[in-house]
Amino acid sequence: MIETKNLSLAEIEDLSFRALVAAGTSEENARPLAVATAQTEADGVASHGLAYIPIYCEHVQCGKVDGQAKPVMSTPRPGVIKVDAATGFAHAAIDLGFDSLIPLAREQGIAALAIDNSYNCGVLGCHTYRLAQAGLLGIGFTNAPASIAPSGGSKPVVGTNPFSIAAPGEDGQPALLIDQSASTIAKSEVMKHAREGKAIPVGWALDSDGNPTTDPNVGLKGSMAPSGGYKGVGIALFTEIMAAAMTGATLGIDASPFSGTAGGPPKTGQFFIAIDPGQTAQGAFAARMSDLVGAIHDQDGAHLPGDGRQSKRRKSADHGVDVNVATLERINAILL
Amino acid sequence: MIETKNLSLAEIEDLSFRALVAAGTSEENARPLAVATAQTEADGVASHGLAYIPIYCEHVQCGKVDGQAKPVMSTPRPGVIKVDAATGFAHAAIDLGFDSLIPLAREQGIAALAIDNSYNCGVLGCHTYRLAQAGLLGIGFTNAPASIAPSGGSKPVVGTNPFSIAAPGEDGQPALLIDQSASTIAKSEVMKHAREGKAIPVGWALDSDGNPTTDPNVGLKGSMAPSGGYKGVGIALFTEIMAAAMTGATLGIDASPFSGTAGGPPKTGQFFIAIDPGQTAQGAFAARMSDLVGAIHDQDGAHLPGDGRQSKRRKSADHGVDVNVATLERINAILL
Repeated sequence: MIETKNLSLAEIEDLSFRALVAAGTSEENARPLAVATAQTEADGVASHGLAYIPIYCEHVQCGKVDGQAKPVMSTPRPGVIKVDAATGFAHAAIDLGFDSLIPLAREQGIAALAIDNSYNCGVLGCHTYRLAQAGLLGIGFTNAPASIAPSGGSKPVVGTNPFSIAAPGEDGQPALLIDQSASTIAKSEVMKHAREGKAIPVGWALDSDGNPTTDPNVGLKGSMAPSGGYKGVGIALFTEIMAAAMTGATLGIDASPFSGTAGGPPKTGQFFIAIDPGQTAQGAFAARMSDLVGAIHDQDGAHLPGDGRQSKRRKSADHGVDVNVATLERINAILL
Repeated sequence: MIETKNLSLAEIEDLSFRALVAAGTSEENARPLAVATAQTEADGVASHGLAYIPIYCEHVQCGKVDGQAKPVMSTPRPGVIKVDAATGFAHAAIDLGFDSLIPLAREQGIAALAIDNSYNCGVLGCHTYRLAQAGLLGIGFTNAPASIAPSGGSKPVVGTNPFSIAAPGEDGQPALLIDQSASTIAKSEVMKHAREGKAIPVGWALDSDGNPTTDPNVGLKGSMAPSGGYKGVGIALFTEIMAAAMTGATLGIDASPFSGTAGGPPKTGQFFIAIDPGQTAQGAFAARMSDLVGAIHDQDGAHLPGDGRQSKRRKSADHGVDVNVATLERINAILL
């Protein structure tokens, strides 16, 4: 039984903010990360919420991320915004870019934001969500250190690389939000099984010769299994091309790990595309989304990607979130 | 043993062109479809090459596609091109759109092409390939009649919906081309097993209650299994949103079948995004692609998506393609 304590979203944001600042993060950089942490906890994705605050703080202290970084923006073309995250937190770079991306997408019909010299951006769907809130279709990509092998090979070349798409709906809520990685299962699940000494199911990870394994430690030294075989590799490559090759960021094969303190800044990237459905679909978008979502919700037991997060988010706004007390203790130690 | 005859790519294009025109297609509409047919045969994707010409001709004759259609283009925003395919062939609409999309993407850095009132666009990767040849990163989406059920449901709501991405390389060849559908296997494979009275492997299709089946006929009445489970549904939804909701085209749940003569024009859609890597990655793109591709080709037995098509394409240019004689006879019957 894990001991928990109920915190409001404002309390989660405030606690995150204070810990990040105490560790040496500028207030400007700490705020968007604290907001995203509260949002992530609200969505029920505890693995990427407060649990990450001690890691972020450690990374500021060891120089894996520059807490005082000032991201630099440029607009090389009317539809393209480029942000150099300057080895700071991805969230501050995304915030800076979105301030221009949103009006630009409305004006141009479509616009792109390419971020390099960046860091782990947390839950990707928290960012595309904001584009949908602004009435835009948001697509996002982010890359990670290599852990998936190519088809026919056994050595990792691409990360578990998630992509996300958020479609605008009514009342500032997305009609649909997809946020999925390219692997069968999150790497953190394999690590959890290793810590607990439990076997993993066949299909989660592969050994260093590319064969299935049920030993999580063998899998961690090998590679993560791509979702759906070669098609999962295709998704990981799609994301790697967008987040790294298209931004000039570091490829997963060259990036330092997101966990631990070794290797300096990972300098990975993010790529976002924002599109105005009012221009491309000329008035038909809302009806199509409503028909598509309706056809799914009309089926007993069927659900949309993002349904779970959305219902948790609604509940969390009123009732707060039950947070792991051990995590709180680790964060409070930073504040002492 | 299937009887074949060797044809040059020019002969394949010419034969396709004459058959389409004989069936009532305008020369303007027939040409891009004939070019794509030769390209598809060159790539070794025989299922979508000449074998489709009799189907296209039948669809012109029954009115499922308007062979004389004149697609209409508009530019509602500086970065957005809209093409109404006017229930004609997708290829003519894409050609019209690409003539503007390519210069626009260079000028704006990113541009979108949204096509509605369209038809089956054949092999999606043949289109994104052209964007890569122009030095642009090309992303494409196309939707199809519903055949994949949502997670937790059993009734199809989205098609096997492919997406494609083509990254530019040297000498006008893509450095990498991904073109994959959202299902475990192509529906045509299940249909082939049904015709031949063979069982299908578990994992290809589901019965109408959503349970695995090895009977191809039961699967065809049920749904196609998404690749990698719920993540394949996510890919199909991503593509449905882009190709239908974002263009105002008909959703897969409402589209008439691509096969057979019933139901009138499917009025499905295509969505393309073209991005100039020179602007988003500011000079780093080619080196990143080369490192990524190199890390894959350096591994014994490992291969990239699109490697197979590319080597077949090179061979076909010099040696032509061995074409099924029964298919040639069906096409020659149209020319009589």
